[in-house]
Amino acid sequence: MGFNVPSHQPEGKVLNSNFSVDANRLISDLETLGQIGRTPGGGLRRSSFSSADTEARNWYIGRCNEAGLTVKVDGLRNLIVSSPNIADHIAGRPAVWSGSHIDTVPNGGRFDGALGAIAALECLRRIDEERIPLARPVCSVVFTDEEGCYANLLGSSALVTDFSLAELEAMTGRDGDRFVDTFVAAGGRLREATQTKIDPSMLHAMVELHIEQGPVLERLGHQIGVVTGIVGLGGGSITFEGRPDHAGTMPMTSRKDALIAAAALIVEFPVLAARAGPDAVITSGMIRVEPGSANVVPEFTCFSVDFRHPDLNQMLALEAEITSMAYFIGKQYGVGVRVDLGKTIPPVVLDHGIQKIITTAAGARGLSSSSLPSGAGHDSQNMAMLVPTGMIFVPSISGRSHCPEEDTSCSDVKDGANVLLDTLVRLAT
Amino acid sequence: MGFNVPSHQPEGKVLNSNFSVDANRLISDLETLGQIGRTPGGGLRRSSFSSADTEARNWYIGRCNEAGLTVKVDGLRNLIVSSPNIADHIAGRPAVWSGSHIDTVPNGGRFDGALGAIAALECLRRIDEERIPLARPVCSVVFTDEEGCYANLLGSSALVTDFSLAELEAMTGRDGDRFVDTFVAAGGRLREATQTKIDPSMLHAMVELHIEQGPVLERLGHQIGVVTGIVGLGGGSITFEGRPDHAGTMPMTSRKDALIAAAALIVEFPVLAARAGPDAVITSGMIRVEPGSANVVPEFTCFSVDFRHPDLNQMLALEAEITSMAYFIGKQYGVGVRVDLGKTIPPVVLDHGIQKIITTAAGARGLSSSSLPSGAGHDSQNMAMLVPTGMIFVPSISGRSHCPEEDTSCSDVKDGANVLLDTLVRLAT
Repeated sequence: MGFNVPSHQPEGKVLNSNFSVDANRLISDLETLGQIGRTPGGGLRRSSFSSADTEARNWYIGRCNEAGLTVKVDGLRNLIVSSPNIADHIAGRPAVWSGSHIDTVPNGGRFDGALGAIAALECLRRIDEERIPLARPVCSVVFTDEEGCYANLLGSSALVTDFSLAELEAMTGRDGDRFVDTFVAAGGRLREATQTKIDPSMLHAMVELHIEQGPVLERLGHQIGVVTGIVGLGGGSITFEGRPDHAGTMPMTSRKDALIAAAALIVEFPVLAARAGPDAVITSGMIRVEPGSANVVPEFTCFSVDFRHPDLNQMLALEAEITSMAYFIGKQYGVGVRVDLGKTIPPVVLDHGIQKIITTAAGARGLSSSSLPSGAGHDSQNMAMLVPTGMIFVPSISGRSHCPEEDTSCSDVKDGANVLLDTLVRLAT
Repeated sequence: MGFNVPSHQPEGKVLNSNFSVDANRLISDLETLGQIGRTPGGGLRRSSFSSADTEARNWYIGRCNEAGLTVKVDGLRNLIVSSPNIADHIAGRPAVWSGSHIDTVPNGGRFDGALGAIAALECLRRIDEERIPLARPVCSVVFTDEEGCYANLLGSSALVTDFSLAELEAMTGRDGDRFVDTFVAAGGRLREATQTKIDPSMLHAMVELHIEQGPVLERLGHQIGVVTGIVGLGGGSITFEGRPDHAGTMPMTSRKDALIAAAALIVEFPVLAARAGPDAVITSGMIRVEPGSANVVPEFTCFSVDFRHPDLNQMLALEAEITSMAYFIGKQYGVGVRVDLGKTIPPVVLDHGIQKIITTAAGARGLSSSSLPSGAGHDSQNMAMLVPTGMIFVPSISGRSHCPEEDTSCSDVKDGANVLLDTLVRLAT
C-alpha cells in the first residue's frame, strides 16, 4: 500500500493556478456553517446527533444538492458525496476520498473539521463544474461523531471494523444518554449501523485538510503543513465506587470517598505523562459524582481519560500505568475500581507518496510548507488502515483549538483548499 | 435564655405511659411518606421544590387537615401547624415548636427529617385528640430545604435572619437552576420570601426528634440520645478557571487545567481535616467541569465544599486553611480561583434544661439514654439562636444515613416519639 512517486515524474503537471477553488463560496460556506449551533459566547455546540448537528448535516446535504451532487448516507450516518456527471466506467473504479467532520466539542471552534468538510465539497464542486477529466471518481465525505461524544472517531472507526450491537449498546454520550436510544430517535437503524464497514478495494486514496490546532506552522511562518503521522489515541472512563455517608457524621478516617480517590488519580496524570516523555498527554475532561449532594460523601465518581503518544509502545505503557495506578489508589482509599478503556487507535504513519504530492502542490503555488506530526486524532488515522492517506494542515492562530478563539486566516483557508484541490486532481488522474 | 429546672421538681409528673403516641399511625405515616420520590433502587429523591417534595408537602398538609389541624405557610414555605381547639388566651402565648424537614438528599433515606416531622405531627394529633390542658400552644413545623439544595438549612436560616433579594437571586440548586426561578415557578412570592424572619417572643421552646445518623447509640445499646450540641457548618463552592485547549495538541506543561487543580485541592481535604483534629470533616460531594468533553482540557471546574467542627475557632481555622490552600494551588497550576463560602452556621450548645427534661422523660419510660453531640447540621441549630432548643436522637442501624440503607427500628421510632411527646407536654404545661 502507498504511492510510489518516481522522482523523474513531474507530479505537478496538471496543477496550475488557473484552476482553483472559489474562495468566496468556500469562506461563505464556512461562515454559514459557523452560525449553526453557535452559543452567545461565540463557541459552537454541535455534538453528534444533537439538533444543531442534525441542522448542520441537513445544511451540508442541501449545499450538495444545490450543486447537483449525489449524497449517500451509510449505516452510521457517514455522508459520501459524489458527482453524477462521471462516466460509468470511471464511476466504478476505486475512489479518491476527501473530507472531515462537522460535529464539534462543546463550546468548540468554527474550523475544526468544518474546514476539511467544506473544502472537500468545494473541490468536488469545482472538479464537477469544470468537468475535469478524471481516471477515477473523487468523493467528499463527512464522518460521524469524530469528536467522540459516543466513541472516538466513531464513524470512521466503523468503516474499518463494524461495531457489534453489544458495543453500540454500551456507548454512552457526554450527556449520559445511550447511543442506541439517541441514534434510533434520530431515525437511525441499528442493523444498518452494525454493517458500515467498507471494502477497501473501493478506495484509491484519502486526503484530509485540517487546521493544525497547534502553534508549529505559525511559529515557522509556513502556510502548509504536510502531516507525517498521527499520534495514537486511547481512553475511556474510570469509575471509583465508595460508600455514601452523611458528610457530618462519618469521620474522615471511616469513609470510602469516591471523589477523593478520583482526585488522587487525576492529580497524578501530569506525573505519569512526564514519565512517558514530552510527547505524551493525559487528559480528564469529564467527571460525574453520584449521588451528587454537597452533604453526602460521594459513592461513585466516573471520569473520562484521554491519552495520546506518537509511539505505540509508549501508548501501551501509558495504558498499563494508568490502569495500575487506578487499582493502587482504589486499594489505598478502600474503594472499588472499574477501568473501561476502549480500543486504542494506534499511531499511524501517513503515505509518503501523498506527502510528496502535497509538498509539490504547495511549492507549485508558491507556498512554504513543512512536515510535522499531528498531536490530534483524526478520521484519517482510521482511513490510513484502509487506503494510502494524507493530511494537509493550515496554521491555527496562536495554536488555539477546541475553544471559541479557534481561528485561521482567510488566505490560509484558501491556500489549503487549493493545495487539497491540486492533490485530489493529481491522485484522481 | 434557657430552662432552669430545679432538681426538687418532679419534671416527670405529667408523664405516664397511658398517654402515648399512636405507634401504628406514626409508622404508617412514615411508610407512606417513604414511598414519595422513591427510586427503583429504594432511595428517595425529594430535593426541595422538586415535584416529589411538593407531593410530600401536599400529603403532609392533607394529613394535618384530616386531623382537623390548621396549617400556616410562611414566606419561604416553612409549614407551621397548630390546633384550632385551644383557648384564645393560650393560643396567643409563646409556642412550643417541634418538627424537622421532609426534603431529602439525592438517593437519601426514609428517616432523616421525616421521622421528626411526622412524630411532631403525631404528638400534636394526640395532644389535640385528648384535649390535654396546656399552658401554651404546641406547633408542629416542617422546615424548607434543610438539605441545602439551595442553601444549608434554608428555611430555618430565614427564620433567624431574612435573606435579601440579592442573596436569593445568587442561590443555585444542585441541578444548576436558579432558586428564584424555581421558587416563583412553584408559586412562591419573592417579596414574602424576604420577610420570613420570626419574632422570637412568639416562641417558648423548640424540640426536634431525629435519627442519630451515626453509630454511637447502637454501639452503646442505648435507646435515646440527648443531644448536647450541634457542630458548626460551613461551606459553599470553589471554582478554578483555566484555559480550554485541545487534549491532543497542547503539551502538558503548557496547560492551564482546571480539573487537575481541583483534584490537587480535593486530595488535600483529608490532610487539612486531620490537622484540625478527629472531629473535623471536609467533604466535596458535587463537581462540574466545563466545557465537559473528553478531548478538551477543562476550562472551569466548580465543586462544593462542606466543612464542620464542634468548635467555632476550629471552624474559622478550617475556612481559612481551605481558602489559602485553594489560592496556593491556583498559583501552582496557573489557574484563576474563586472561593464562594457562604455564612458559617456556628456550633451551638443545646439548652441544658431541655436536655434534663428529655433525660427524665426517657427514664420515666424505662429507656436508657446517653448524652452526645450531633455531627450533622439540623434546623435546631438555627432555632437555638432564637429560643431554648433541644434534640432527641434515636439509633441509626449501622450508623448509616444519607443513603437507601438508612434505617431505624420500629420500637426506637415509637420510643423516640413518646419521649418527644412527654417533653413537649412538659414544656407546654
